[in-house]
Amino acid sequence: MSEGERAAELIELVEDNDLTGIRLWLAEHRPYEIADELSRMAGGDAIIPFRLLDKDRELEVFEELDPSQQQAILLGLRDSAFHEILEEMDPDDRARLIGEAPAKIATRALAGLSPAERKMTASLLGYPEDSVGRYMTPETVILHRDLLVGRALEVVRARGADAETIYTLPVVSDGRRLVGTVTLGDLVISDDDRLLKDIVDVFAPRVRASEPAEDAARLMQEANLVSLAVVDSEDRFLGLLTFDDALEVIEAADSEDMARQSGASPVGDHYVSVSVLRLVGARSVWLMLLIVAATLTVNVMQAFETTLEEVTALAMFVPMLIGTGGNVGAQSATAIVRALAVGEVRVRDLPRVIWKEARVGLLLGIMLAGLALAIGSLLVGFAVAAVVACSVIAVCTWAAIIGSAMPLFARKVGVDPAVVSSPMVATLVDATGLIIYFSIARLVLGI
Amino acid sequence: MSEGERAAELIELVEDNDLTGIRLWLAEHRPYEIADELSRMAGGDAIIPFRLLDKDRELEVFEELDPSQQQAILLGLRDSAFHEILEEMDPDDRARLIGEAPAKIATRALAGLSPAERKMTASLLGYPEDSVGRYMTPETVILHRDLLVGRALEVVRARGADAETIYTLPVVSDGRRLVGTVTLGDLVISDDDRLLKDIVDVFAPRVRASEPAEDAARLMQEANLVSLAVVDSEDRFLGLLTFDDALEVIEAADSEDMARQSGASPVGDHYVSVSVLRLVGARSVWLMLLIVAATLTVNVMQAFETTLEEVTALAMFVPMLIGTGGNVGAQSATAIVRALAVGEVRVRDLPRVIWKEARVGLLLGIMLAGLALAIGSLLVGFAVAAVVACSVIAVCTWAAIIGSAMPLFARKVGVDPAVVSSPMVATLVDATGLIIYFSIARLVLGI
Repeated sequence: MSEGERAAELIELVEDNDLTGIRLWLAEHRPYEIADELSRMAGGDAIIPFRLLDKDRELEVFEELDPSQQQAILLGLRDSAFHEILEEMDPDDRARLIGEAPAKIATRALAGLSPAERKMTASLLGYPEDSVGRYMTPETVILHRDLLVGRALEVVRARGADAETIYTLPVVSDGRRLVGTVTLGDLVISDDDRLLKDIVDVFAPRVRASEPAEDAARLMQEANLVSLAVVDSEDRFLGLLTFDDALEVIEAADSEDMARQSGASPVGDHYVSVSVLRLVGARSVWLMLLIVAATLTVNVMQAFETTLEEVTALAMFVPMLIGTGGNVGAQSATAIVRALAVGEVRVRDLPRVIWKEARVGLLLGIMLAGLALAIGSLLVGFAVAAVVACSVIAVCTWAAIIGSAMPLFARKVGVDPAVVSSPMVATLVDATGLIIYFSIARLVLGI
Repeated sequence: MSEGERAAELIELVEDNDLTGIRLWLAEHRPYEIADELSRMAGGDAIIPFRLLDKDRELEVFEELDPSQQQAILLGLRDSAFHEILEEMDPDDRARLIGEAPAKIATRALAGLSPAERKMTASLLGYPEDSVGRYMTPETVILHRDLLVGRALEVVRARGADAETIYTLPVVSDGRRLVGTVTLGDLVISDDDRLLKDIVDVFAPRVRASEPAEDAARLMQEANLVSLAVVDSEDRFLGLLTFDDALEVIEAADSEDMARQSGASPVGDHYVSVSVLRLVGARSVWLMLLIVAATLTVNVMQAFETTLEEVTALAMFVPMLIGTGGNVGAQSATAIVRALAVGEVRVRDLPRVIWKEARVGLLLGIMLAGLALAIGSLLVGFAVAAVVACSVIAVCTWAAIIGSAMPLFARKVGVDPAVVSSPMVATLVDATGLIIYFSIARLVLGI
């Protein structure tokens, strides 16, 4: 069955209120597929198929949803179903849901939890938003370093069913201090009578619960880890960050970077389920700042009004010139923002990066100037074309420098480099580029 | 030790040719950290610390490097070391290295392999580039469905050391036909005397080796899989796609999307190690096409030359107007490209998406028009300001429609939506936006 057909079906079945059809559809699909379809519906509609799910699949589907969709579903459930789902959720997923929910839902949710689960949730909620602590799972099988491999495997077999993950097993000494980790794979293939402390990987990376979740996720990606051990400031084991949560963190961070790069705030939720007004809200702030900043371009144009009146042909090339400058600047900014995000470039590379981008901008400028000269000569004659060509070289070099320097400076002063958006670079290059253009025009044309 | 200090050290030690210092540094760092530092050096420099690595860590570091850096290292190795590394590499990593290497290295590499490894590599190289087949590992432990759990665990313990991964275990019937998969976790926590066929997950997703690797990786992300079973057209088990390779595929795809969104071709390698000329090459093609396309803006400006001469104040607002249109279009395009990449939007959503973005563009236009009216009235008087304000509304709506429709059309005709870059949308909006602007000016000002 193709993706398109599958999607059409569930929405239509819900619209037709065809309960038998919905049940059949649900039985034929996997939890993540169901969650995907529910994410594309308004909260009120999604509750209908959700209520028809088998009890044992409800939780699986629920955990795959975005927090906002989870809230919408919870609001449509009776108290018993509401509390049952929250009680059985993974503690980290539950903490994030409650952390983002309005106070009304959050209070109702916490009140219904068993004391043990409430305590776990409260402790996770104690960590800052977007920190490792909010994403780690405390439900693991902890092994003492003095165990034999055979005995450790017995412990895992006995207690593994209650843990969220057993692929990576924390090995601790007295006082729950983390010695290192052992993978389930290593445990399985090692001889039963070896000592755990002889096979534990003491160099396995570990992170503090208070660290940013994105940094930890990128570390897992770099080191190819299925799970990463999380400790407190005294190196006591707290939980594991698992690869599925790490993937979620990275995907969210990349989506945020992309949105910011286009001058918008990240929206977070599924595109289809976000309202027009929320999209307007996410995009308007930067646009308004940028249009105010663009007043500068009006000022520059006014300052050179006499130049423009003397050679009206100069005005014809303004869109082409500033467009090209903006494009070159956006390319540099995007490349550097990405390189910073994945760790390929660091702040101390600043001089080297700017020098490299300046040369790239200069070479691009020379190539583009050739084209501009040809186009300009054909349309308005050589003199103005020459002014345009010289300006293209200068503006491209300048744009590449601005585009690469700004994200690095942002990181240096502790701001997310991705807020240095392509539109911001373009607006800055527009105003300064016009000054360069008209100055060259005056010089060359002797106005 | 901070990131900055660590980095400074190895490069400096290599520059000073301080072999003792390099050895010490290597001993203190993890393979992925070493690989990260080597990636930041020129190929010729990286060989010095690489040669000083312990034999048993060479391979681990090598496998973490980009293919281009791997090639540079291989060229600096003696025949024995060269063949030893290639023989011991994971088959999928080796196939990708050989697939991308110049013929000279590829031939030398294949010639030195043992017959078994050569056969495995050749079969992986038979799949198209960027397909699942190039990334899957054939080195797994295959279990027959009729085994008991206890016996299956014995098989894993006996053969697991030679496999690349044992977290997900393929379960097959006769003729190697895939029944489903069982996780090592489930195997460990199940009773010894249960039948494997009773615990196998027959609904576990599977993909064909010929499918695009990115689609498979996104599926793993959506379904939270550590490994994904790969089959041939007759459903025979071929290998597993593991999460670390999936992460690599997704990170590369996201980097490519980001580069394309800024109108550049993806470069692939580590930013620091890419030459100025390669960056120029990756960025120049679109810039040149776009500057030629920008000729349209010159034509439009010329067509309305008389209008411009009558009201020179109109020219002052050209950069602000087209800048704003470009910004709005870029936001829409970025949002839709991302939503398509992560599967939140599908081609058949086209009418709904355009309708949504049109309303977003209209509302943004109204907000921005208010600002433009205020700025314009202050600087050049109400009449021209009113023209600018009306144009802002029209151009923003138009830009949002163009920005959202183009990526969807691209996907519809089978082109990567990410090639609909922000600069491309901006250039298109520039020319059409100017026509809108001058037409409104003529109408309102009665020129």
